Amino acid sequence: MRHYPPSLIALIRQLSKLPGIGEKSATRLALHILKSSAGDAKNLADCIYAVKEKIHFCPGCFGLTDQALCHICSDPDRVKNTVCVVEQTDDMASIERSGSFKGMYHVLHGTLSPMNGIGPDDIRLRELYSRVEKDRVHEIIIATSTNVEGEATATYIVEQLSALPVKLSRIATGVPMGGDLKFVDQITLKCALERRYEFETPDHLNK
Amino acid sequence: MRHYPPSLIALIRQLSKLPGIGEKSATRLALHILKSSAGDAKNLADCIYAVKEKIHFCPGCFGLTDQALCHICSDPDRVKNTVCVVEQTDDMASIERSGSFKGMYHVLHGTLSPMNGIGPDDIRLRELYSRVEKDRVHEIIIATSTNVEGEATATYIVEQLSALPVKLSRIATGVPMGGDLKFVDQITLKCALERRYEFETPDHLNK
Repeated sequence: MRHYPPSLIALIRQLSKLPGIGEKSATRLALHILKSSAGDAKNLADCIYAVKEKIHFCPGCFGLTDQALCHICSDPDRVKNTVCVVEQTDDMASIERSGSFKGMYHVLHGTLSPMNGIGPDDIRLRELYSRVEKDRVHEIIIATSTNVEGEATATYIVEQLSALPVKLSRIATGVPMGGDLKFVDQITLKCALERRYEFETPDHLNK
Repeated sequence: MRHYPPSLIALIRQLSKLPGIGEKSATRLALHILKSSAGDAKNLADCIYAVKEKIHFCPGCFGLTDQALCHICSDPDRVKNTVCVVEQTDDMASIERSGSFKGMYHVLHGTLSPMNGIGPDDIRLRELYSRVEKDRVHEIIIATSTNVEGEATATYIVEQLSALPVKLSRIATGVPMGGDLKFVDQITLKCALERRYEFETPDHLNK
């Protein structure tokens, strides 16, 4: 790297800070930026500035927005009394992509993780509790990850909110669609068996 | 992606233009930039600006520099009359990293490739020819890649310069160090066999 000019080395160093980008990839990216048109490089730099300047957390769901309220919180067609609790903004985007949810969201920005010193006050839990009464929430769907921290956070939320008149649910655990049973881990299989559901009897056989 | 705010989408689009970065990686990088400190994001954007503003081609070797001459061309300790011809600036960095060359460089910025419409006037060949006389070059080591275009470019340079009193050489082809023969392709093996060299007899056996 020391065989490059200082300003190129500075860019390589900055790019290496990005996740999954090592020194080799950073060098390739930096040389590409150097070769690309002045307009393209300017656009990239400007977009980085803009993202840090314009984007903030939506005061409704704590998702990302560059408006006063995000496009979901401000959408009159969404079901206001159902709230889906997710860990991060990209989880929200994943559920939106599935097109299967028409309610509101609440982004926690993390999970409870005592090992890393993250307690209930470090994630957006208090804001969730206050939403339940303020927005007259009917159901909270907890869609945190199905790992240790995600499950612990889900259990904690259920404990905290069980006294309130709100329905609490958890996304299903099981074999993913198209999943081959031999590649599915034992705990998932155990869950999939325990939470098996009965086939509905077709109407014409029911009489 | 459409579930993110417009300025974040704009950054994702710009990052997706970089080589080897698809939409998913670009999203991950953009979210990282958003989460990183304002200082880090500003540094990255500033480095992109600086690289495009400051870096230009060295008039000596056509490598990259932000000075009048690059650190190799301006180094009084380098052997001025030996020139290593490479395709790109990163090839120059690779050879420098090996620490085995103390002469000068000449970066062609491409190879002859009639299929892609790249002829002798599209790469820095004329500048190479003029260097031979101007700098009283003694040897030209052609270190273009060992693929079709690289070999064709090497052959072309040899044809053009054969009339001049300059020694023309080509980097060796063979099995890479640490290479396992069963993973080496047939053409490389053929070259490695044809260009085999005799072990030198140790001095004490020579008498």
